[in-house]
Amino acid sequence: MNETYIHSSSIVIDALQCSDFSRDILLEAQAGGVTAISASSVLWENFRGGIEYVIMWKQKLAENADIAMPVKTLDDIRRAKAAGKVGIIFGWQNTSPVEDRLDYFGIFKDLGVNIMQLTYNTQNLFGAGYLEEKDSGLTGFGREAVDEMGRCGILIDLSHVGIQTSLDTIAYSEKPVAITHCLPRGLKDVPRNKPDEVFKACAEKGGVIGTSLFAPGLAKGNDATVADVIDAMEYTMDLVGEDHVAIGTDFNHNRPRPGPWLLWANKDKGTGRTLTEFGSARITKPEGIRRNDEFPNLTAEMQRRGWSQTRIEKILGGNWMRLFGTVWG
Amino acid sequence: MNETYIHSSSIVIDALQCSDFSRDILLEAQAGGVTAISASSVLWENFRGGIEYVIMWKQKLAENADIAMPVKTLDDIRRAKAAGKVGIIFGWQNTSPVEDRLDYFGIFKDLGVNIMQLTYNTQNLFGAGYLEEKDSGLTGFGREAVDEMGRCGILIDLSHVGIQTSLDTIAYSEKPVAITHCLPRGLKDVPRNKPDEVFKACAEKGGVIGTSLFAPGLAKGNDATVADVIDAMEYTMDLVGEDHVAIGTDFNHNRPRPGPWLLWANKDKGTGRTLTEFGSARITKPEGIRRNDEFPNLTAEMQRRGWSQTRIEKILGGNWMRLFGTVWG
Repeated sequence: MNETYIHSSSIVIDALQCSDFSRDILLEAQAGGVTAISASSVLWENFRGGIEYVIMWKQKLAENADIAMPVKTLDDIRRAKAAGKVGIIFGWQNTSPVEDRLDYFGIFKDLGVNIMQLTYNTQNLFGAGYLEEKDSGLTGFGREAVDEMGRCGILIDLSHVGIQTSLDTIAYSEKPVAITHCLPRGLKDVPRNKPDEVFKACAEKGGVIGTSLFAPGLAKGNDATVADVIDAMEYTMDLVGEDHVAIGTDFNHNRPRPGPWLLWANKDKGTGRTLTEFGSARITKPEGIRRNDEFPNLTAEMQRRGWSQTRIEKILGGNWMRLFGTVWG
Repeated sequence: MNETYIHSSSIVIDALQCSDFSRDILLEAQAGGVTAISASSVLWENFRGGIEYVIMWKQKLAENADIAMPVKTLDDIRRAKAAGKVGIIFGWQNTSPVEDRLDYFGIFKDLGVNIMQLTYNTQNLFGAGYLEEKDSGLTGFGREAVDEMGRCGILIDLSHVGIQTSLDTIAYSEKPVAITHCLPRGLKDVPRNKPDEVFKACAEKGGVIGTSLFAPGLAKGNDATVADVIDAMEYTMDLVGEDHVAIGTDFNHNRPRPGPWLLWANKDKGTGRTLTEFGSARITKPEGIRRNDEFPNLTAEMQRRGWSQTRIEKILGGNWMRLFGTVWG
């Protein structure tokens, strides 16, 4: 059983990209054996911005129907695999399009939005982001939001969420949650990475942690390679077991750095103060896994380390499949 | 100098009513010698709801131009006094119409909105309300909001704001702030009332506390009378001095209890969970000061207690005039 076989036979899921998708990127993902991608560029948009995102993807998927397709259900991912197309999961990095109206969760679920991060970086009506100075945890309205997302079948993502709000959400949610793209503080102590206790709490409730490729979160920063990514997966796996680790690349292709989208992303609510240095810093992805057609390099490194086929399949996509199946309904 | 003279010669300002104003209410206010009222029924509205409020008042003031007029500036209050008309200050009990866009503060100031409460009862992007279980204080975006409100000349109100967020806002704001309608916890220990330290901090920065007529916040509840209101003023004055106490009735005429507006008001963001028992409870105002034409009874009780004319004028409206003059620009 060679490495090419294991990669090409597996369902491969990337639980977070915020790329500005073009046909070229979709072709690269297809070439890289990527079955499904959560396209998660919504950061600060309001209700109508959320609707625009849906319209944009309807158009993009219609134009690229020969190589890509929308993922509304778990079966759609299987259909994408069978057809050799790239499935696009509608995911968001913020609940901001829901504004102050809990019923909008159901509206967006009806339109195919299956994953939402509770908040992006700072405080919103539901809780605090990791860049908020103080985090008082899940708010009263936040508990209502978690209930409603559970009822609708929207997977909650906690990647950019503050520690207390993350712990509160995991504890309060009836359904397991995701941390779609995050690295362990145990390997590098930066605010965007999460401490072991959050990963453990997430896994204990049945959740999944997607290892990200965000260079500032890896010990070697911009000098990291595929091996460092697999190291981060192994660290996380030692902590929570192989049923709770997966991939969320955080690829942001076609988003020039510095450039208007990243500068907007890096301001509170898109127009407030600048939040971090990331918006203008040079940040690359680890060597060997910088583009969607390099996904097989991850699998090759897993095999080089002697991971079983079962484990590889879980990390590449099996764990996301289980979690999506549990939550999406 | 009789009591009728002092009342009728004074500028009388009520810094908070959430009544559904009719011509009858405006006539009562005129008969009660009320110079200006902050009409503050915005609670959960979004941007367009805030615009609707402005439109509604433009129409209402055009229809009642013989007895009422808009207050955009401090001089407008003096003009209302000279003309014997009731000045209407556009005030809000929430910043919700600003949504996530700090520049909307300037837009609404241009449209005449001169007072905004930072948040109403629960957590918003800027801070926590008094009914939020935990209050982590003024958020990062909240500091930006306070800066922007200061720059635009919008008076910040903290009446329904949580304690930590109130203290943070007072400390952070360059301009003094208002607590337009609130009673002291020292006389009745209920969450809606504020502890001495908040009143003191507000006054030390030059702010003003409007004594409210909200019966559940008075020791005698629905059995309270005008004397209990003046007791609350005297308690607060002992704490912070006569330059920092004033009136904010919280009159809510034409809002049936229970009724759709109060039930909406009492749900988080207007459509979430019900927050308190107030929405359906029977709540009256203190005997002798239940309607706008009973304002002279407050002045009479002040005179009965031997307050000086200077003190009476400050509490009736002078202190609000000073604060408005400092903040509105």
